[in-house]
This record gives sequence, C-alpha cells and structure tokens, in this order.
Amino acid sequence: MIDTAKKIDKEPRITLLGAGPGDPDLITLKGIKALQSADVVLYDALINEELLDYAPEHAVKVYVGKRSGDHSYSQDAVNRLIIDYAINYGHVVRLKGGDPFVFGRGFEELDFAASYSIPAQVIPGISSSIGVPGLQNIPVTHRGLSESFWVVTGTTASGKVSDDLYQAAPSKATVVVLMGLHKLAEIAEIFKAEGKNRLPVAIIQNGSSVNEKVVVGIVDTIVEIAEENKITSPALMVFGEVVSLHAKFQPIKEFYDIVAQE
Amino acid sequence: MIDTAKKIDKEPRITLLGAGPGDPDLITLKGIKALQSADVVLYDALINEELLDYAPEHAVKVYVGKRSGDHSYSQDAVNRLIIDYAINYGHVVRLKGGDPFVFGRGFEELDFAASYSIPAQVIPGISSSIGVPGLQNIPVTHRGLSESFWVVTGTTASGKVSDDLYQAAPSKATVVVLMGLHKLAEIAEIFKAEGKNRLPVAIIQNGSSVNEKVVVGIVDTIVEIAEENKITSPALMVFGEVVSLHAKFQPIKEFYDIVAQE
Repeated sequence: MIDTAKKIDKEPRITLLGAGPGDPDLITLKGIKALQSADVVLYDALINEELLDYAPEHAVKVYVGKRSGDHSYSQDAVNRLIIDYAINYGHVVRLKGGDPFVFGRGFEELDFAASYSIPAQVIPGISSSIGVPGLQNIPVTHRGLSESFWVVTGTTASGKVSDDLYQAAPSKATVVVLMGLHKLAEIAEIFKAEGKNRLPVAIIQNGSSVNEKVVVGIVDTIVEIAEENKITSPALMVFGEVVSLHAKFQPIKEFYDIVAQE
Repeated sequence: MIDTAKKIDKEPRITLLGAGPGDPDLITLKGIKALQSADVVLYDALINEELLDYAPEHAVKVYVGKRSGDHSYSQDAVNRLIIDYAINYGHVVRLKGGDPFVFGRGFEELDFAASYSIPAQVIPGISSSIGVPGLQNIPVTHRGLSESFWVVTGTTASGKVSDDLYQAAPSKATVVVLMGLHKLAEIAEIFKAEGKNRLPVAIIQNGSSVNEKVVVGIVDTIVEIAEENKITSPALMVFGEVVSLHAKFQPIKEFYDIVAQE
C-alpha cells in the first residue's frame, strides 16, 4: 500500500490534530497551519472533508475511519500507518474529530510514535463535549445550576456502560455522554435509580453541522422522545439542570410546574 | 463613557467568542471571522492581545477584565456594557478566555442580551481543561486509565471549595480543577481523605503560553512541589492516573516502584 521508495528527503514528524466537532470553521488557526505543511493527512470518519483542502495538492490523503465497512483499520494498523507514512513522506497530520485526547485514542498513537523516536506534537481541538452543547446555548456550567461537568463515554472497550456513569448519575455535575446513544435506555435507567426522573436531558445529533438536530426532555421521557424524533448517531447527551436553560425546554418546564401545583 | 449618539446604522448583535487557552493560534477560524466583522471587542484578562489585531481598525477595543484593580467591572456592568455597545455600535464580540461556557459566566451575558432581544451567537473555544493538559501530552482520557474526566472549579461563588470536589475525589474520573491553585492544600486533603495519597497530579501554569510551566507529583507531595517551583495563578490541576503518562512523572514512578518492592 505504501511505496517503499522514499518519496522525499524530509524529516519524519507527526501532528496529532483535533478537527473540532464538525463545522470546518471550528478548526483552530494552528490546525490550519499544520495542514498547510502536511505531506500526508490521515483522517477519521466524522471529519469534514473540506478540511483536506488546506493540505497542499501533493499531500497524500488517507481515510482511516473505523466506520467504513470495507476499509476498516484497527488501532494497531492506524498506529503503523502513521509511522510508515512519516518515514516515507515526512510530515503526517493525524486529523481526528473533536479533541485528540477525548476518547480519541490519541495517546496510543503518540506513544507508538515515541517508540520510533519520531517527533510528535499535539494540537487540541474543540471537544464536542463542551462545544456542541454550547452551540445550542446550553452551558456546561452555570452559576446556581452547575459547578462542574463530567464527560463520560457511552462506549467502553468492554462494550458495557462505563462504571463511571453509576458515579456520575448521583452527582451534581452536568453529565455529558459521548458515543452512547445506543445505550440511552440503559443510561436513563441509571439516572432513574438515583431518583432523577425529572432531570432535564438534551440529545444533540450531528452537532455543529448543517444537519444538526436537537431534542430535549427529562430522564423519564427522553427515550421515547429520541425514538419519536428518529435521533441517530453520532449524537451526544447532556444530563443536567443546565438543559433547563434551552429554549425548547420552556414548555416542558411549564408543563411540570403545572403538574407540581395540582 | 459611551457616546449616546448612535455611531453607525448597524443592527445590534453579539458574538460570545471563546479565545482558547492563551496561544493566539488556538483560536478557531470562525472566531477570527467574527473578530474581522467586529465593531466592538470587549475582552477579558488572560486574553492574548494579539487577537485584537484581527478586528478592523475602526473597532472599539475595551478591556473588561476582572483582575485589573483600577478598572474592575462587575458582571452586571459587563452585561450592560455589551448591550450599550451593541445598540450604539453594532456587532459586539465578547472575547473570553477558553470556552465561554466553562466557568465563563457566558450564559449570564447571553441571557441579558436575550432580555433586550438582541441576537446573539456563541462560538466555542478550546477549553483549558482539555487543551492545556493535552499540549503537555496528558490525555484526559486513556484506555485502561480513565474512561471519563470531571472538570471542577476551585473558585465558587461562596469562596469555598466546590462540594463537587468531594464527590470527584473518590471517583475514577480524571479530575481537572480550574482556578483552584489558592486552594491546592485543601484540595489535596480531600484526595488524601479518600486514600488517594499516591494519585499522580500535574499543575500547569500559563498553559499554552510561551511562559508555560509544569510540575508533576503525587497528592502527598504536590503542595510542596508547587511551592518549591513557585507556581502561581493562572494554573490548572490534573488529578488522575493519566498524569503518570507525562515524561516528568517517570522518575517518580520508578521511585515509588522501588519503594513498593522493599
């Protein structure tokens, strides 16, 4: 797959680059500069391909997304590809969705590069966990409602819901769950078990993209609401009082205020 | 302070913009575009003033940082300034460090603007909580070490340590504490009370800036290490096993591995 002949006489180096949540304008200036000096770009699923246009014409662009059925790469394969391309082509930009260190397995790639003594730098990206709720005017923290936020993955290596969610549910933190839509019913049960049936919940699909979709509800209703509205992955969930600040939550709040008065 | 005469015939609008952690190249392209169309920029302490150069020459630039002794603005005063400038000048870019919704009181400004029916948009920024550890190659999540991260403020409205820290300390999450250096000793005690004396800790001062400074240690030693190295604010703290991945932690790990074998 890779030419064994060394294409150019460049020092191998690697940039682990966070592309942000989807909107191509949410990449950083530092990220754009890195792409402009790329000899190779290895990019994931969920990366907006417009970003590839920042790379020079001569740059090799390789899709290594794990969602594609035919061209699925294991993490080990990606690690090796990064090294092979760096040695043969020079500057490899490893373009990842969101931030490289938020469930991105970025450190594994960095660590593998270090084992070959190839210099690597990291450029952070806007993490969906903060930026996607923010674009919906849902603040992860807000005086009087939340002094902290806890970001958990819905998809662990074991395939089970993370144990951390059982600790997060009773906490006062805003809980943001990434990659967990397929576990929504199970996660809602965890919150119900803590008596948080009326905790506000938002689900945001394709955050920051043109086809963004948002639904809000409470723990008791969110599974039904997500189904009714045909919410699909990629989507993130926000559990917390801060969701009550969302415009779509106002009628829900009024409904429950009325019920409470009865 | 503000001319009552309307300067220009522009529709008032507000952009709440996250500037990122300090390095001016860590602003987003969307942020640069917003600055380029600004009539007014209201900026905080900790904002790199190079960013103001993106604004047109005619734009009014106003420092509203809360750290400056003489020119301290209350949150109410900032809220009002945003509105006054928007009505009188047009497009106000409210430039805030990190992300506007991570302890940035951004929603209060947005809410105040909404009460005047002035359109407002939010542009997320790289939050220090993720980006600053990341630039030090400390991943907030890493397979086998951390399935989640919890971001807490060290400075609450009451002046006390956040209750959430008492819940965070026993958890398996990577715990990132912003604006808490003055409470370091107290926070370390919270982790000690959970038996986490040997949990790795990093403190990063002036993250992403040219004068960045990092120290690492464990819960038992971090207060002394921070004092010895004269760490001062602004600084953030990372409590978690992921800190053991930092290059500076390796000698500490070897030391404790040896001690453990005795």
